[in-house]
Amino acid sequence: MEFTVDQIAQLLDGTVEGDGSQMINNLEKIQEGKPGSIGFLANLKYEKHLYSTHCSAIIVSKDFVPQKSYTTTLVKVTDPYSAFSKLLESYAELTKPNPLGVEEPSFFGNDSTIGEGFYRGAFSYIGKNCTIGDNVKIYPQVYIGDNVTIGNNCVFHPGVKIYSETKIGSYCEIHGGTIIGGDGFGFTPQADGTYNNVPQLGNVVLEDHISIGSNSTIDCATMGSTLIKKGVKIDNHVQIAHNVTIGENTVIAAQAGVAGSTIIGKNCVLAGKSSIVGHIELADNTTIGGNTGVMKSVIEPGTTLFGFIGFDVKAFLKSYSVFKKLPLLQDKLRELEKKQ
Amino acid sequence: MEFTVDQIAQLLDGTVEGDGSQMINNLEKIQEGKPGSIGFLANLKYEKHLYSTHCSAIIVSKDFVPQKSYTTTLVKVTDPYSAFSKLLESYAELTKPNPLGVEEPSFFGNDSTIGEGFYRGAFSYIGKNCTIGDNVKIYPQVYIGDNVTIGNNCVFHPGVKIYSETKIGSYCEIHGGTIIGGDGFGFTPQADGTYNNVPQLGNVVLEDHISIGSNSTIDCATMGSTLIKKGVKIDNHVQIAHNVTIGENTVIAAQAGVAGSTIIGKNCVLAGKSSIVGHIELADNTTIGGNTGVMKSVIEPGTTLFGFIGFDVKAFLKSYSVFKKLPLLQDKLRELEKKQ
Amino acid sequence: MEFTVDQIAQLLDGTVEGDGSQMINNLEKIQEGKPGSIGFLANLKYEKHLYSTHCSAIIVSKDFVPQKSYTTTLVKVTDPYSAFSKLLESYAELTKPNPLGVEEPSFFGNDSTIGEGFYRGAFSYIGKNCTIGDNVKIYPQVYIGDNVTIGNNCVFHPGVKIYSETKIGSYCEIHGGTIIGGDGFGFTPQADGTYNNVPQLGNVVLEDHISIGSNSTIDCATMGSTLIKKGVKIDNHVQIAHNVTIGENTVIAAQAGVAGSTIIGKNCVLAGKSSIVGHIELADNTTIGGNTGVMKSVIEPGTTLFGFIGFDVKAFLKSYSVFKKLPLLQDKLRELEKKQ
Repeated sequence: MEFTVDQIAQLLDGTVEGDGSQMINNLEKIQEGKPGSIGFLANLKYEKHLYSTHCSAIIVSKDFVPQKSYTTTLVKVTDPYSAFSKLLESYAELTKPNPLGVEEPSFFGNDSTIGEGFYRGAFSYIGKNCTIGDNVKIYPQVYIGDNVTIGNNCVFHPGVKIYSETKIGSYCEIHGGTIIGGDGFGFTPQADGTYNNVPQLGNVVLEDHISIGSNSTIDCATMGSTLIKKGVKIDNHVQIAHNVTIGENTVIAAQAGVAGSTIIGKNCVLAGKSSIVGHIELADNTTIGGNTGVMKSVIEPGTTLFGFIGFDVKAFLKSYSVFKKLPLLQDKLRELEKKQ
Repeated sequence: MEFTVDQIAQLLDGTVEGDGSQMINNLEKIQEGKPGSIGFLANLKYEKHLYSTHCSAIIVSKDFVPQKSYTTTLVKVTDPYSAFSKLLESYAELTKPNPLGVEEPSFFGNDSTIGEGFYRGAFSYIGKNCTIGDNVKIYPQVYIGDNVTIGNNCVFHPGVKIYSETKIGSYCEIHGGTIIGGDGFGFTPQADGTYNNVPQLGNVVLEDHISIGSNSTIDCATMGSTLIKKGVKIDNHVQIAHNVTIGENTVIAAQAGVAGSTIIGKNCVLAGKSSIVGHIELADNTTIGGNTGVMKSVIEPGTTLFGFIGFDVKAFLKSYSVFKKLPLLQDKLRELEKKQ
Repeated sequence: MEFTVDQIAQLLDGTVEGDGSQMINNLEKIQEGKPGSIGFLANLKYEKHLYSTHCSAIIVSKDFVPQKSYTTTLVKVTDPYSAFSKLLESYAELTKPNPLGVEEPSFFGNDSTIGEGFYRGAFSYIGKNCTIGDNVKIYPQVYIGDNVTIGNNCVFHPGVKIYSETKIGSYCEIHGGTIIGGDGFGFTPQADGTYNNVPQLGNVVLEDHISIGSNSTIDCATMGSTLIKKGVKIDNHVQIAHNVTIGENTVIAAQAGVAGSTIIGKNCVLAGKSSIVGHIELADNTTIGGNTGVMKSVIEPGTTLFGFIGFDVKAFLKSYSVFKKLPLLQDKLRELEKKQ
């Protein structure tokens, strides 16, 4: 995939300063680029790299005035960051793998159907009575159980496991090793100290435009559905327990966990390693900081919690700054006591 | 699977108020139920749902007196929660998948044996010299190494990996993506700053009635065995390091971790994201709170720890409540100092 | 594999006290050993086990003087721990599985090459245009995408998934269920509250002598490479986000996570469940304690951080010891105020 700098400038509504006939075949960071690549300079903190970059061209703001001499070619645009993102998306669209057809051996159960434009990789397994839409890419070693429905334009990366009865919408992408629909963790204690399994009869429902990272888990509901609503983005190693509901466009970072039956609102952010206990609700637009534990419902939309047991982030940080001085405070208190 | 309300009442030793001839084909929550389903009302907090439920029947206490009019049929029993659990278990038993036989291609190593009533899914792998009991279900893409022994009535969900030399009892169930027997994390530092691997020659032993969730890991011992005793229940994303012993009927929730050579007692509870350091012991009936780190042995049975470095849960919560007011305390102290 | 005690003593430059003709076929802990096994006694804390051990032989220091009678045979050496480690390594080398050849069915893409001494297990998948060196062991159900390069003497345990474009050096070992090269977690918020995916065009580079445990994840870079340098050791359930660099010989324990674009120095230690935020740097020889969150760069090499938001470990432990007494401090302060 090769374009000239001039062609790229045209795509981005920009102007060229330097040799517009050079061939570009890659996008790179300004400080890491090699000849043949194009980078960008949006934050002037990185300006120094412009004067030493090996990129053949750099996208800059139309207002940018260089302070030193440089050897690269400039593409001047209104907003360098947006322009580069646009270029990145065009590049990704053009270079995206589009595997098609069936690699054998693979397993396709009775009474299952799959639409047009599909890929079923070697050693992939699709159970009985599944309904799968168009342009669905099922990579090698993926498992899809019985009675699963999947919409259009979904991608299942290698090793994903989808248990029976799961319902998945369109434009969903799930990365390697993620398990959807395993049993919820429910046991009833017996008089002798042992536990009986509580049967887990429900399923998982993923709506449209959901992204899930690698090695995450979403458990099926005890009854009914564990529900992930439209536009939710989930990172790696995330745990979603049985009967949880995650609201639209909520973002959950790596190693976070949500315990059973909790309901998370819309447009929330759960940062890395945050933990939400079971049977509570978080209002829309709640933000939970990294490592933060949440032990009761959040009523007020737009709340930000932080801390071992999370409370208002500003209040936590003030308390933590005093925590660092606690030995000193203790000494002062002792001195005051002595003076009494 | 369909029963009349009368048949269900008979199973539960209950009495019917309303139309006992209605057909029931599903169990649902009182607030989510559809016609044809049966729900229950145990906690009167949920009573309002009785008056608007779409469930065809609701199990209630024999002492329950409705405060408003309702349209559903009541099944009156001594203990609605237990009755519903019983119904759930009967339903699960009747509807549980019971796959049988071999799906090809699958791999079955030399000198291995498997009992009656088995299922070996497509792309499953069983190594050499394994001994596997009756009614064992091995789902697609499961790996079982060499010299593994497995008892009766075990289920291995898709993608489970069991390393060579593992010993597994009867009535064990392991969910998708869980890895049993990977190398323990042991390295000896060298003078030049590099590390040499410590050979990991031991194995993992799982006794009977063990449940393990999705994407968990149990490492093999350096020598001897990492040992999970009878009745232990392990959730998703749990890490059990080399040479750990987990006592009978201990419950370990999602994303918890136990470091090397630690010994956990019987009937303990490790809550979500708790961490136990290596080379310590926890007494029987110890409870470790969520996110809690444990850095030394717990001697007293029945102890409950909580906190960043866990200590007595009540003491921690008191300290944490003062922590929230630390900026105020600091101000007061400063004022007192000024007055001196 | 059987040797006499005399043969083992000769290997270890040791002398025998007792019956040197006994056959040894296993290495075990002094307190767990069975006849036919050899153990060791390095730390005299464990001396009592010498007098009751069932091991046929025990390696002890040449200066060791027994305080009671014993029945085992002694092998006296200069340094019992090193001698036992040496024995362990020799034993591991002799008993290490060395599978060879191809198990069918397996998938090998066009224009891919693999060197001598390889193993490709059943249901393993190797994509197109891969270059793989000598003595590489690819266990069942492993996935390797397109255009992957792998050096010599690597081991990929069952279920490992290596995305396309990954570059792996020599002497690397990756345990079951680990995912290398999944998409970085990057989304740009839109005006309507939804998110667009940021294309992830980069890859992962693993240099030589890298060990990775089970069910870990390393995401590909947005552009360029996520880079794991020579000699890095990574445990289970570890998360390495996009564009991270991990320096040589750094050790990362279970359930730790490093967020996007962070640069970790050489010979660092990240303990279990530690979390490093994105876009910061840790100096060489930094140690991060268990459960510790790191929110800003560490400049000084050799720093040790600990705490919810990590700071100097000694300072944290002092503050935490006062934290435990906070209710008492509050009472004292109140008393002082009353006396005013």
